[in-house]
Amino acid sequence: MRITVVGVGLIGGSFAIAMREAGMASRIVGVDTDAENCKVALERGLVDEIMTLDQAVGCSDLIAITIPVDAIPLVAVKVLNKVNDSQIVIDMGSTKEELCEVIARHPSRGRFLVTHPMWGTEYSGAGAAVSGAFRGRVVVFCQQERSDADVVDTVTTIYERMGMYIKYMSAEEHDLHAAYVSHISHVTSFALALTVLEKELEDDRILDLAGGGFESTVRLAKSSPQMWVPILMQNKYNVLDVLREHIHQLQLLRKMIEKDDREGLAEAIKRANGIRRVIK
Amino acid sequence: MRITVVGVGLIGGSFAIAMREAGMASRIVGVDTDAENCKVALERGLVDEIMTLDQAVGCSDLIAITIPVDAIPLVAVKVLNKVNDSQIVIDMGSTKEELCEVIARHPSRGRFLVTHPMWGTEYSGAGAAVSGAFRGRVVVFCQQERSDADVVDTVTTIYERMGMYIKYMSAEEHDLHAAYVSHISHVTSFALALTVLEKELEDDRILDLAGGGFESTVRLAKSSPQMWVPILMQNKYNVLDVLREHIHQLQLLRKMIEKDDREGLAEAIKRANGIRRVIK
Repeated sequence: MRITVVGVGLIGGSFAIAMREAGMASRIVGVDTDAENCKVALERGLVDEIMTLDQAVGCSDLIAITIPVDAIPLVAVKVLNKVNDSQIVIDMGSTKEELCEVIARHPSRGRFLVTHPMWGTEYSGAGAAVSGAFRGRVVVFCQQERSDADVVDTVTTIYERMGMYIKYMSAEEHDLHAAYVSHISHVTSFALALTVLEKELEDDRILDLAGGGFESTVRLAKSSPQMWVPILMQNKYNVLDVLREHIHQLQLLRKMIEKDDREGLAEAIKRANGIRRVIK
Repeated sequence: MRITVVGVGLIGGSFAIAMREAGMASRIVGVDTDAENCKVALERGLVDEIMTLDQAVGCSDLIAITIPVDAIPLVAVKVLNKVNDSQIVIDMGSTKEELCEVIARHPSRGRFLVTHPMWGTEYSGAGAAVSGAFRGRVVVFCQQERSDADVVDTVTTIYERMGMYIKYMSAEEHDLHAAYVSHISHVTSFALALTVLEKELEDDRILDLAGGGFESTVRLAKSSPQMWVPILMQNKYNVLDVLREHIHQLQLLRKMIEKDDREGLAEAIKRANGIRRVIK
């Protein structure tokens, strides 16, 4: 399969590696506006060559759009404008409603499958791409009924060979759920980093102590604004909703601590422990 | 060295393993009010035998108090009441001000070294104890000038042989810093788990998507109320202070998202990225 990866950063680069390792790529073309990304992608052998978007679409069986979410809808339309009935286009963005709305009436809508492999790290760029990225993770398909059957079949095979589990949901469901299990984690992590960094200005010894628990909660705060501003803006209403609830929960805990309400606090922590059902 | 571990849970059990592996323990006695913990500690060979506190103190060179922080001060006094001038007592609790205050005027104060190895996991009990727990981490010594020189020397050797780095600070400094780098992470994680779990009651598909980022930020929410209610209550004023700042940062981010302030958001995330200086 001849593949084009539009955006050879963390996700696109890791996808290229996975396709190569699964023996599904005969040739991989990279498209990227960032010269450094192109250089690193070529040096690391993530892609075989770099082309313009038009050139690349002209000679690929599968085009994977792996750029920040605010740029996906327009590029999706531009790619769909050029594909024929045997080519396949997918995206891997973290928000789906706007994309689905924009491509809804495109005559080649059937050639597109809206997907979101639930994987990422706090690093970005071609240098951050890794092997084995998607294995064991969930990939969400949105509106797969709007895609041609052969498109769904091929993309299903691709993700399954990478060891992913497919879930189906609407764009609205996806964006709501993503707000809860991904976007809010990033906002709290940014806020936690800011809290600590502001204090550090006053006292530079605080961070001497940074241990394992701290590391795991602020790790996501290393994530780039280039990726996260678009996600938070595109999923604005869900994110605001979840954020409101989260601040409310923090305020409840604060009040219990303030009032020495040990029983309330113990009960709340015990309820929070319910998360064991979800993560090992 | 004959060692007693008072509280053979996650910390005490892991300490026992580390002492054994470093070849520093000729015999390890466990003291625990929890019969199940005693059983597991014996079965796993964490301790050689179980005794009462009085018996154990009577035949040990080093007594390590590794119980929840609300129970440490009284047990510390009871142990100090019984030790002679060659025995050594340490604790490993996450808060220090109350402990230091309580033992301040004890005639055997010099035999005690107040320590906090900055390590833990979200699990508890003897079954959760692991090998290699403390390696590469920081251990804080508080008020080491109040401990006898031979006590500081021996305990320094113990922690250094386990691969730990020693930092010295006052009890007040310790508790402030611990609020920032450990206690607040737990509070946000509890709040995040509660936010998501409340929503899950409405829609049980949300957690299908729980990916890597979510896992790392809510991992700490599996931590037990038995350990964390005492810590949060003992460090109440620092925790409330940090919590207030953290909620303030969340509200600032919320306002930026609400107002489509992309530049402000990008700038805030870029500042949060400064955490890269601190954690790899």
